[in-house]
Amino acid sequence: MGSIRARIEVALARSLPGAQQAPARLHQAMRYAALEGGKRVRPLLTFAAGELAGADPARLEVAACAVEMIHTYSLVHDDLPCMDDDRLRRNKPTVHVEYDEATALLVGDALQTLAFQLLSEHALTDDPALRLTMVNTLALAAGSRGMAGGQAIDLEATGKTLSQAELEYMHVRKTGALISAAVKLGALCAGPCPAALEQYANRVGLAFQVVDDVLDREASSATLGKTAGKDAKQGKPTYVSTLGVARASQFAEELRCGAHAALEGFGERALRLRQLADFIVLRKF
Amino acid sequence: MGSIRARIEVALARSLPGAQQAPARLHQAMRYAALEGGKRVRPLLTFAAGELAGADPARLEVAACAVEMIHTYSLVHDDLPCMDDDRLRRNKPTVHVEYDEATALLVGDALQTLAFQLLSEHALTDDPALRLTMVNTLALAAGSRGMAGGQAIDLEATGKTLSQAELEYMHVRKTGALISAAVKLGALCAGPCPAALEQYANRVGLAFQVVDDVLDREASSATLGKTAGKDAKQGKPTYVSTLGVARASQFAEELRCGAHAALEGFGERALRLRQLADFIVLRKF
Repeated sequence: MGSIRARIEVALARSLPGAQQAPARLHQAMRYAALEGGKRVRPLLTFAAGELAGADPARLEVAACAVEMIHTYSLVHDDLPCMDDDRLRRNKPTVHVEYDEATALLVGDALQTLAFQLLSEHALTDDPALRLTMVNTLALAAGSRGMAGGQAIDLEATGKTLSQAELEYMHVRKTGALISAAVKLGALCAGPCPAALEQYANRVGLAFQVVDDVLDREASSATLGKTAGKDAKQGKPTYVSTLGVARASQFAEELRCGAHAALEGFGERALRLRQLADFIVLRKF
Repeated sequence: MGSIRARIEVALARSLPGAQQAPARLHQAMRYAALEGGKRVRPLLTFAAGELAGADPARLEVAACAVEMIHTYSLVHDDLPCMDDDRLRRNKPTVHVEYDEATALLVGDALQTLAFQLLSEHALTDDPALRLTMVNTLALAAGSRGMAGGQAIDLEATGKTLSQAELEYMHVRKTGALISAAVKLGALCAGPCPAALEQYANRVGLAFQVVDDVLDREASSATLGKTAGKDAKQGKPTYVSTLGVARASQFAEELRCGAHAALEGFGERALRLRQLADFIVLRKF
């Protein structure tokens, strides 16, 4: 996984406008937000799904970068004072702390645009209709019925108690949609996405959030690279507040097994996707 | 122009998620931001350019809506307290005043995504490669080397004196890029965009901003539907602060003539584009 992660870092650095290119401050802040740090779970999923489907790694790089640009934009905006008001991310000061709020707003805006620019200017598949499907898949995952919509539900839920079904409804959008898109985009670089991969993606997407909730309660800020314990402090309903730590951890484990089960038909080709499901659930940060 | 404007309003209302669809508060706020009010200059340009090129009006509707979603997202984010901190827009309270800052942030984010969703899910041309060109044209116009980049330059320029060349550099990005994309997308609905149309687009794009600067100084908030006189108050360099009102108005008039000149080869087919150049420069709001 290390060599693919290194490849992703190089691709991200190359996909972003140069730090000296005008407007330099904006481009420096975009690079600050997107480079160094980050587990790169989504790009790794894109690579692993694309490898299973037999896609060209040079194409996977671009798709992986597009997904990571959307993810990074969402982090930069979520950290703003009017949202989570967070000062630490990926072990560094957040963008609005290091630069300023207006710049952080524009960084997020421009990173989102860059994602669609990347998908539209590289020949990610030989079939342009399939490339439009990729643009549409990413837009649906990021928009008001996907990630941004999940954020809106999260805002409204703060201070409330949610049932497990309501939590799942929120997180399928807030986190699951983009993780699922990461998998689909990888597969789409080689052709239509197999249904079993979508099933896998939905399970690891939800597992990712359940584990995040557990870690927010159990781990330290130093280990996480971001502020720990903030869910409880902000009165956010989480899998831990709804199920408790033990049952939430057990639920994550069930989702890990479910993700493995979805991959059964693929044999050895799904090795990396299996490893990623394990990493997502067993990680300590 | 009135019947096309009415058609655009209907298309915008249909392109946005329904107000009752979950997450309802986000979708209501998106509709609040995008519907009612607005001169719709960009969609009108898309229609006029598409009409000249012989494009299907049903396709132009979608392209026009995509451009207007990007424009509206930029207004919602620009009005936020960390940017211009404005309370009045299109004669209504701004989104963060009517709702809240976090919702306004998500509204802008989701409207941007919606633009790319629209372009990727409708058959805007028979050639999918040309549709990818449309996605790329809009992304380049909106991103860090287009509109968002122009905003970043604007932030840095506040309190400074700019030369006319520096002002133009900023506004070609901040306003011109999206206006130019509006024209190009209209033409692209029928086929590749003629070079003369790009020339026209660049001139009306710049003229739009010059006139905006003059109106900010000369008109009232009631007429503009947004806060007047804020450029001088915020110490923003404008065509008025650089050239004075008289020479700025003369420059706008030169650009209007230049826009007409670019259309010479098109004869009667360019009637609406000529009318729009006149409207952009001669408007009082």
